[in-house]
Amino acid sequence: MSDPTVMQLLGRRLRLAVVGGGPGSFIGAMHRQAARLDDHYQLVAAALSSRPDAALQAGQSIGLPPERCYADGAALITAEAQRADGAEVLAIMTPNDSHASLALLALQHGMDVICDKPLSNTLAEAQAVHEAVQRHGRILCLTHNYSGFPLVRQAKAMVMQGDLGDIRLVQVEYVQGGRAVAGPSRRPWKDDPVRSGPSLVLGDIGTHAHQLLRFITGLEVSAVAADVGTIVPSRPTHDFAGALLQLSNGARGCLWVTQAAAGMENGLRIRISGALGTLEWALEQPTVLHFKPLGAPAQIRTPNGPGTLPLAARSSRIVAGHPEGFHEAFANLYTDVGLTIAAVRSGRTTDTLWQYFPNSWDGLQGLRFIEAVLASSRDMGRWTHLPT
Amino acid sequence: MSDPTVMQLLGRRLRLAVVGGGPGSFIGAMHRQAARLDDHYQLVAAALSSRPDAALQAGQSIGLPPERCYADGAALITAEAQRADGAEVLAIMTPNDSHASLALLALQHGMDVICDKPLSNTLAEAQAVHEAVQRHGRILCLTHNYSGFPLVRQAKAMVMQGDLGDIRLVQVEYVQGGRAVAGPSRRPWKDDPVRSGPSLVLGDIGTHAHQLLRFITGLEVSAVAADVGTIVPSRPTHDFAGALLQLSNGARGCLWVTQAAAGMENGLRIRISGALGTLEWALEQPTVLHFKPLGAPAQIRTPNGPGTLPLAARSSRIVAGHPEGFHEAFANLYTDVGLTIAAVRSGRTTDTLWQYFPNSWDGLQGLRFIEAVLASSRDMGRWTHLPT
Amino acid sequence: MSDPTVMQLLGRRLRLAVVGGGPGSFIGAMHRQAARLDDHYQLVAAALSSRPDAALQAGQSIGLPPERCYADGAALITAEAQRADGAEVLAIMTPNDSHASLALLALQHGMDVICDKPLSNTLAEAQAVHEAVQRHGRILCLTHNYSGFPLVRQAKAMVMQGDLGDIRLVQVEYVQGGRAVAGPSRRPWKDDPVRSGPSLVLGDIGTHAHQLLRFITGLEVSAVAADVGTIVPSRPTHDFAGALLQLSNGARGCLWVTQAAAGMENGLRIRISGALGTLEWALEQPTVLHFKPLGAPAQIRTPNGPGTLPLAARSSRIVAGHPEGFHEAFANLYTDVGLTIAAVRSGRTTDTLWQYFPNSWDGLQGLRFIEAVLASSRDMGRWTHLPT
Amino acid sequence: MSDPTVMQLLGRRLRLAVVGGGPGSFIGAMHRQAARLDDHYQLVAAALSSRPDAALQAGQSIGLPPERCYADGAALITAEAQRADGAEVLAIMTPNDSHASLALLALQHGMDVICDKPLSNTLAEAQAVHEAVQRHGRILCLTHNYSGFPLVRQAKAMVMQGDLGDIRLVQVEYVQGGRAVAGPSRRPWKDDPVRSGPSLVLGDIGTHAHQLLRFITGLEVSAVAADVGTIVPSRPTHDFAGALLQLSNGARGCLWVTQAAAGMENGLRIRISGALGTLEWALEQPTVLHFKPLGAPAQIRTPNGPGTLPLAARSSRIVAGHPEGFHEAFANLYTDVGLTIAAVRSGRTTDTLWQYFPNSWDGLQGLRFIEAVLASSRDMGRWTHLPT
Repeated sequence: MSDPTVMQLLGRRLRLAVVGGGPGSFIGAMHRQAARLDDHYQLVAAALSSRPDAALQAGQSIGLPPERCYADGAALITAEAQRADGAEVLAIMTPNDSHASLALLALQHGMDVICDKPLSNTLAEAQAVHEAVQRHGRILCLTHNYSGFPLVRQAKAMVMQGDLGDIRLVQVEYVQGGRAVAGPSRRPWKDDPVRSGPSLVLGDIGTHAHQLLRFITGLEVSAVAADVGTIVPSRPTHDFAGALLQLSNGARGCLWVTQAAAGMENGLRIRISGALGTLEWALEQPTVLHFKPLGAPAQIRTPNGPGTLPLAARSSRIVAGHPEGFHEAFANLYTDVGLTIAAVRSGRTTDTLWQYFPNSWDGLQGLRFIEAVLASSRDMGRWTHLPT
Repeated sequence: MSDPTVMQLLGRRLRLAVVGGGPGSFIGAMHRQAARLDDHYQLVAAALSSRPDAALQAGQSIGLPPERCYADGAALITAEAQRADGAEVLAIMTPNDSHASLALLALQHGMDVICDKPLSNTLAEAQAVHEAVQRHGRILCLTHNYSGFPLVRQAKAMVMQGDLGDIRLVQVEYVQGGRAVAGPSRRPWKDDPVRSGPSLVLGDIGTHAHQLLRFITGLEVSAVAADVGTIVPSRPTHDFAGALLQLSNGARGCLWVTQAAAGMENGLRIRISGALGTLEWALEQPTVLHFKPLGAPAQIRTPNGPGTLPLAARSSRIVAGHPEGFHEAFANLYTDVGLTIAAVRSGRTTDTLWQYFPNSWDGLQGLRFIEAVLASSRDMGRWTHLPT
Repeated sequence: MSDPTVMQLLGRRLRLAVVGGGPGSFIGAMHRQAARLDDHYQLVAAALSSRPDAALQAGQSIGLPPERCYADGAALITAEAQRADGAEVLAIMTPNDSHASLALLALQHGMDVICDKPLSNTLAEAQAVHEAVQRHGRILCLTHNYSGFPLVRQAKAMVMQGDLGDIRLVQVEYVQGGRAVAGPSRRPWKDDPVRSGPSLVLGDIGTHAHQLLRFITGLEVSAVAADVGTIVPSRPTHDFAGALLQLSNGARGCLWVTQAAAGMENGLRIRISGALGTLEWALEQPTVLHFKPLGAPAQIRTPNGPGTLPLAARSSRIVAGHPEGFHEAFANLYTDVGLTIAAVRSGRTTDTLWQYFPNSWDGLQGLRFIEAVLASSRDMGRWTHLPT
Repeated sequence: MSDPTVMQLLGRRLRLAVVGGGPGSFIGAMHRQAARLDDHYQLVAAALSSRPDAALQAGQSIGLPPERCYADGAALITAEAQRADGAEVLAIMTPNDSHASLALLALQHGMDVICDKPLSNTLAEAQAVHEAVQRHGRILCLTHNYSGFPLVRQAKAMVMQGDLGDIRLVQVEYVQGGRAVAGPSRRPWKDDPVRSGPSLVLGDIGTHAHQLLRFITGLEVSAVAADVGTIVPSRPTHDFAGALLQLSNGARGCLWVTQAAAGMENGLRIRISGALGTLEWALEQPTVLHFKPLGAPAQIRTPNGPGTLPLAARSSRIVAGHPEGFHEAFANLYTDVGLTIAAVRSGRTTDTLWQYFPNSWDGLQGLRFIEAVLASSRDMGRWTHLPT
């Protein structure tokens, strides 16, 4: 990567605060590792627990001074906003129902925001956050982290330069096994629809699949014929969803997501066919991108291998053949949004290639997708259109 | 395979006639190769062309005497039926619209039948053939040849013995690239809906996907929410179809088939999840069956490898590690139906393990599936139920 | 395949006799299936057992008349040679120590020969057979069947047309698990070095690896630094061998073969690197050929897929995406040698593309390789040169 | 990972200095990213260039104060050793010929050391470093980073608990394409044998392959029959090496390494067979470990998947199915040595599971292996024994 660093742009690292992701959370550690990997951030404050003593202990264990260990996200925002050396970026990794309110408060206090998906549990909240981002002129990055993988970006870049021709057919699936067994979730809030949202499977992974499709193709989903429900007996939340898709250019597609496929780990997979060829990518082997051009031998594209396009090239840290994975992809989002924030805050121009992180518009589209899938499913599978 | 041979059961090979599959056809050669592989059949007559001179030349080129080279399937059936040494089994590989009438005529003349799929272009014809099979007490094998692959049979046997527990989720896809480019088919009758049926993609490969799902799971599709159409501009026939599925036990599924995915070859793939684990099989690597049991390491099952069940064991000709493919799977159907025919004709009992070839009931269910998919698609994707 | 058939060349099928491969043998069934698949042969005689009653029963069970069921290979050859309708091609699948004498006798009686590898147990015998083939002007095909796989032939053709540039580095391995457990072989003659030869592992699979390397690269092995021995305690025969290689153009290589790798099935794999790229093929997935050109994206070549060269194209029976396997590759040898024999016997010219079956020269080179490996191993691994 | 953090052990992070890895180096960035990932280190000083102005600029660009930006490794060591807040750990990523002298100086000044491989260019230097480590009672971690991959550790743990039984056969290969084209290296010191050592390919990747084999099996290489040389015309350094191996328990093996395989990326692969089964791992797909037990279905083990043993479990940061790669494996070494250093420096006991990072003994064994390979190659491939 020949990009500048935040250090070069600002003369210092960005001051980051985190809310959520306390002891036992893997996504909390993931955020902080992603923030550290490329050294663009300095962690200055955290709210790692709603219990003050736990918040203090957890914060100190990661090197924070006691006075910047908060037990409440809102308190963190207001307190940090008043400090001269206060956090300027807030990363949110709390249960889904608090994403929107925390993001709104942070935006109001002049912070840029990095937020776990889904953006919110309701369409109205997503709309409000998206409007606040525009109104306050701030940056919001939604951690649809799969768009940070070098070969997902390569796929997008290949579609953009026309390697597939007109997109015709898309399949995306996200098949996990984490909820194959009946019983309570490891994280209780997930079993409470008030906190986890109207459709757990759609919020958790359906939005990832939807975003991956949108990111690579550059198309929107315009209508769905869908089925969503619960396949594991006596579960209070949805654990599978399927949808036939119409895309904004007339292409057709299929989406299938579940967390109830026993024995599966984390099977995210996409196939995109256009008039000139097909691309296939799967999370299980993220360093392989299959490109099957019409009438020519199939190709395997690798990170930084021959044919790598600029958007993908800047997303790998090493030469071809050295596999990077989940953390690096997550860090790519942190790096891109960090560079963007630093450029904006220092009055510089941002590079176009830094702008491919998911944002509040993507979050809003995700909520619209969830609503349409739920509506179609209630309507016996009938095609339901999304707002254009 | 420790099964007897037809030679042992009858003291001779079964006398086989073929209709269709003349010069330039690969499926014709395939049928005859499959019939030869295990040596249960003697080819005695053929109608390889509707032009008498071409039929004569083609028949002689494969070693038939002139008087048994016919230019018409019906003529073959009636003539052979009158010979003491006449064909007793008819293999049909003509365009789709003649399958049913040839099968009916052969059954009426006491022949057993091996027929290419789909069984017919209309539900009424499929019903008629299925009834004739019962009425005449004859055997009909429908060449849904993927059910002949050793590991597809292993998957079925594992489901039958409960390795997956209750089936919950099924995905099946058949993604080909043969029709990715606009323009006429290599075989003109395919472009004529009168001959190729109401939905080319469903007749060609949709029924394969549907049958593969039914074969392995032992479940029926009870309802579909579907979308079928044409994605390549100006094509007169369907080239893609998607369907959400409800299965007879309440399981949910997804089916996606297309012949218009540029660069793809012959991508048939199925995943079946039950309460206890998941199975995955793909035609691209037919000697690998992934079994992912709940809470234990994932396994790779291979033909004749450790854990092979009887139905699969008898479907491999060699020790583990020697890959068998399409021809061998096709030959497995020929062998199973040949053994069954020979046993019935010699008054012996048939072995249960010989009975897993697709038959006229499967053909009838295939037509019902096609009708339901088309009906749902016309009805804006709404759930459409199949007759039970 | 647009080649003529033996039927077209001769007006009839070739009359084939087999020696060996009786009840319980999978290689016997394999030969006969391979001979039937493309319909160029008629099986007319067999010696399937050295016990007359068993030979009679086995012969009749595959449809032979009693008088052509022999209990002795030599008797078969002399008797068939006197019949006007006698066998003209002899297929030999007996224990290794009888290959040479049977081949010599058959050649003397004017038969063409298809012989299992190794050609013999001793270099002198191999030399004698090779000279007899020249002297009698007959055809001998040695069933190094892996050279019949479409993508192995594609690899050879790509090397021939220069896709790799000068060959520099070769690795070949054949790692089986069939002898991982101590104790007697399923076939007792294998444990007897007099019958199975001076080095079981080299005769069984070392020659396959050696031939595969020679076939694809067109190079000879000119020197070896080798280690051969026994790793499973108390075994009377060799079960592993490794060799560093110098090839005739100065390229370097490595060969590793074993039958004692617990849990392995049949792992034959080769990698060839030249100045312009690398090819990789593995028997476990025989329908994938990896081509990694220098400075361009890696490619996956498939049978009959884009870029298929003529030698490979005629080795597939169906369109791309329909996996063919072990039987079909074996049948490709039978077809090629059958066409060659028929052309020679009918005074026609043979097609160059039919000539890529392994022959007595390959068998002779195989024995030279075995001798050199054994010599180097005895000499503490020192480089040992093969005759040029 | 339930391990403590350095912060918990010491009340602060370890103070780290780096020598080498300046602008344009990917390994320098890699070290620093690895040091940051798990937050056990604070970078306090660096010598990133031998030109003072470049060293200053590079150091400041990563956030160091000017007075701790050195232009010389020795100067860094002596200056930092005098500071109360001086570096206590030195990471060395300079050209190979300076590894030993820097390590010795650091050890003399009481620093612990993290050093790129090979430990030195000569056996005498390696011996001296290993002795100094013992004498000074300090820690040295050699960055054979592949031993940090979770599934490499899982393989080791499975071997240790006897899943393979007695080890019998080992194959290891490291096949790269980075030097397939003639001409100077990207880094000129690599072309100078004085700086890069007596055999570039052995120092660069041969030691990795050797260490990977030793790490997983727990065995030593006791003798080699080897060939090492140059295959790309007019190259001044070695670019391929092959060796047959005798291991300390009598097992046999094969090692093949090259940097001249055109089109290859970074193909490190190992297969280990014992009496009870076989393990296979490849860097290209590092999240898959094939386990093929004798007489039972083959298994695929994944990071944190079912059956994960403690040594592997603590080497993954997230739940199964989220691929970690090269950086995470590198960071695992940094974490393990960091925990060990912190425990020793704080007078606590170290955990056994922290001790699996490669150390000076491994470095010494690597040099002995290089010497033996070179000796055998000079001696016409004859078996050459390593000191025991």
